Amino acid sequence: MKKCEAKVGDVLEVTTEWGVVTGTLVPRYEHADDRHVVLKLKSGYNVGIASSKLRSAIAKKAGEKPAFSSSPTPRNTGKLPKVLVIGTGGTIASRVDYRTGAVRPAISAGELHSLIPELSDFADIEPEILLNIFSENIEPAHWSKLATRIGKAVEEGYEGVVVTHGTDTLGYTSAALSFALRGVPIPVVLVGAQRSSDRPSSDGTQNLIGGVSVAATAPFSGVYVAMHLGEGDSEGIAIHRGTRVRKNHTSRRDAFISVGVSLAAVWRPTGLEVVSPDLPKRGGGVGETRPPRFKPMSRFDDRVALMKFYPSMPSATIKSFDRMGMRALIFEGTGLGHIGSKNLSAVRAFVKGGGLAYMTSQCVNGRVNLNVYETGRDLAQAGVIPLEDMLAETACVKAMWALGNSPTVESAREKMLENLAGEVTLRRFPGGR
Amino acid sequence: MKKCEAKVGDVLEVTTEWGVVTGTLVPRYEHADDRHVVLKLKSGYNVGIASSKLRSAIAKKAGEKPAFSSSPTPRNTGKLPKVLVIGTGGTIASRVDYRTGAVRPAISAGELHSLIPELSDFADIEPEILLNIFSENIEPAHWSKLATRIGKAVEEGYEGVVVTHGTDTLGYTSAALSFALRGVPIPVVLVGAQRSSDRPSSDGTQNLIGGVSVAATAPFSGVYVAMHLGEGDSEGIAIHRGTRVRKNHTSRRDAFISVGVSLAAVWRPTGLEVVSPDLPKRGGGVGETRPPRFKPMSRFDDRVALMKFYPSMPSATIKSFDRMGMRALIFEGTGLGHIGSKNLSAVRAFVKGGGLAYMTSQCVNGRVNLNVYETGRDLAQAGVIPLEDMLAETACVKAMWALGNSPTVESAREKMLENLAGEVTLRRFPGGR
Repeated sequence: MKKCEAKVGDVLEVTTEWGVVTGTLVPRYEHADDRHVVLKLKSGYNVGIASSKLRSAIAKKAGEKPAFSSSPTPRNTGKLPKVLVIGTGGTIASRVDYRTGAVRPAISAGELHSLIPELSDFADIEPEILLNIFSENIEPAHWSKLATRIGKAVEEGYEGVVVTHGTDTLGYTSAALSFALRGVPIPVVLVGAQRSSDRPSSDGTQNLIGGVSVAATAPFSGVYVAMHLGEGDSEGIAIHRGTRVRKNHTSRRDAFISVGVSLAAVWRPTGLEVVSPDLPKRGGGVGETRPPRFKPMSRFDDRVALMKFYPSMPSATIKSFDRMGMRALIFEGTGLGHIGSKNLSAVRAFVKGGGLAYMTSQCVNGRVNLNVYETGRDLAQAGVIPLEDMLAETACVKAMWALGNSPTVESAREKMLENLAGEVTLRRFPGGR
Repeated sequence: MKKCEAKVGDVLEVTTEWGVVTGTLVPRYEHADDRHVVLKLKSGYNVGIASSKLRSAIAKKAGEKPAFSSSPTPRNTGKLPKVLVIGTGGTIASRVDYRTGAVRPAISAGELHSLIPELSDFADIEPEILLNIFSENIEPAHWSKLATRIGKAVEEGYEGVVVTHGTDTLGYTSAALSFALRGVPIPVVLVGAQRSSDRPSSDGTQNLIGGVSVAATAPFSGVYVAMHLGEGDSEGIAIHRGTRVRKNHTSRRDAFISVGVSLAAVWRPTGLEVVSPDLPKRGGGVGETRPPRFKPMSRFDDRVALMKFYPSMPSATIKSFDRMGMRALIFEGTGLGHIGSKNLSAVRAFVKGGGLAYMTSQCVNGRVNLNVYETGRDLAQAGVIPLEDMLAETACVKAMWALGNSPTVESAREKMLENLAGEVTLRRFPGGR
């Protein structure tokens, strides 16, 4: 890149192994490596290009100097609620400079206030970058790191925490934090963006404003996801419960839905409407004072496999997970929770060997029930435990958490059957529908 | 069962290994084995109990003689369209006798007309039982059998075919038939039931009436699914395209949704409203006469795996599918179509070894795009082919069909990239969103 002496904000035409791309040169995130350049395309998406794959680059147009570099960072007043904003990466961690077209990392170097001055109305913000990775690469070890940091933030006296995160696995991480931070006395709000910010009405900016406002002032505690309620901007920001939320569209702003429960709340610039009556109270409970020490249970055991059943799924799949040393299998079965009868003996062997096997449904909505059909009862007899209306993704994360924080397999199994973080509405009914 | 001399229609209390069940003794399906008894529970569900697991049975109440055994089967008039109704099993293949509470197999012994006399208004019906299995046990070999039978039905001059099928894998089978019966000149309508029929308004009866009516008289051809449009009975029967339909709720009557496209049509007792403008015309095309011979492509290769990505999914999973001899992997990735970067080398090795790797999204709605992020482009470079807005389930079935009906892997790969049965809306756009 140095060869063509390009500066941030310049429009470049870059030739790579896979084609020619034209876009605006964007600064790298603070924690990014130096073997990549990042271009902002006209479409609004950022493209990262490994330097090793870069064949040539031609500067087509010089950019203006970025606008924000000289903007002073507004000082925290000390009078508003203190909110920690933790950056992990993803589309939201960028913002366009309108004078140059360049995207700048918003959550770094204290520039957050300059970029979204509205935030200062709600909270005194401390930004912090913990990770900077695509969310499909976020793993249980990262969940642990996040949970530990947020646990410390509670001790440090923050009134709320916002986590910016790529949308791809936002629902998995929100479930993981819901379990690891069970009983957290403040709101923890995960925020993403479906589109990088080309205009002031970008979903990232609005989601972040809503998320910070909820973190600072909501009457409830616990882990939530703040994303657009509708495709437009006027519908407000949906506040989803961390264990019941799912990315249900690849690209829409309102991609996230709550499954099986109502929204927790809806945030609008005019105020917060609490929708769900049974959210934990801020501070740790009605009439209680905040517990002196909140301790996250932040370990995760990744020896868990999520298996979506499909017609002709071979039993060899189950056996190979057994051989890999998986401690739990989460089946995403058909309908009320079924897999092929031919898979039964492999499941039985897995359970006999000490593995935990759970059933969820690929229908997304509704509730599994292994009592209705003989094939379901055969699965139950083989030791498969139905997880009622729990989302498959949440079940997978919960199994990792339960195994990571239990002295015995038996106590992990018990944790799976309790409603610990709003993840399941228990309703065991032997013969019903 | 003989020991307590129970008759069909008697209310029994049965003790099994797993508990005590009270229900009405129900006749077995024609093709069922004789090692099971079937009880109808009060909830309306049927329970099959293996004789080997049956410890005792007490007759609590004698049933009346089933009502339908003496009802005459209405004769086909020879004036209405001829429709073949193929039974495969599932909840729909049963109907309550209101005098006894017993469930009787509806699609057998020519009783269909007696059971649902409304059907005679639309069609001359020939019922036929091809299979009688739970739909989670339906495999590619069964799809072949169904496609072959339906191909023969076209030759035999049927105006339409209805397939009754368990709802669990109804969407997979409808996709399979859509490919195998590509170009079929008549409508083929798959029908299921979410609840076994306790009352005349049961969804099974209505779905079947709608399905038969569409098969007999619709102006379009191709493969469809007929299921309730709403939870109630007044909204009509949704006619979904076979490659775009998904069971999206475990128990609701309106569990099935069309994804990414409008409904094909809505059937109501007052008539058929065609919603989609681009359905193939009955007979094989505008102004064409029916092709003299229609030949299904009914082979399926089950060496295909559907893999739903989740955080920390180990590469060993991909390697084990490789070792199992899988010829194609369908990834259900996150967001626009991503899996962890750590999985990249295993995917590359699978493709280098001659395997086909495809990307769909676990978001269900929307469209994958591997051009937006570097991680996506890395997948594309490794040989992963994005399947645009195709459902993951449909992609899995299509890969089995493409491999089963192609002389070379290359020609299977080409089939996957074409829109063959309405399964995909092609829109390749390198830099867009």
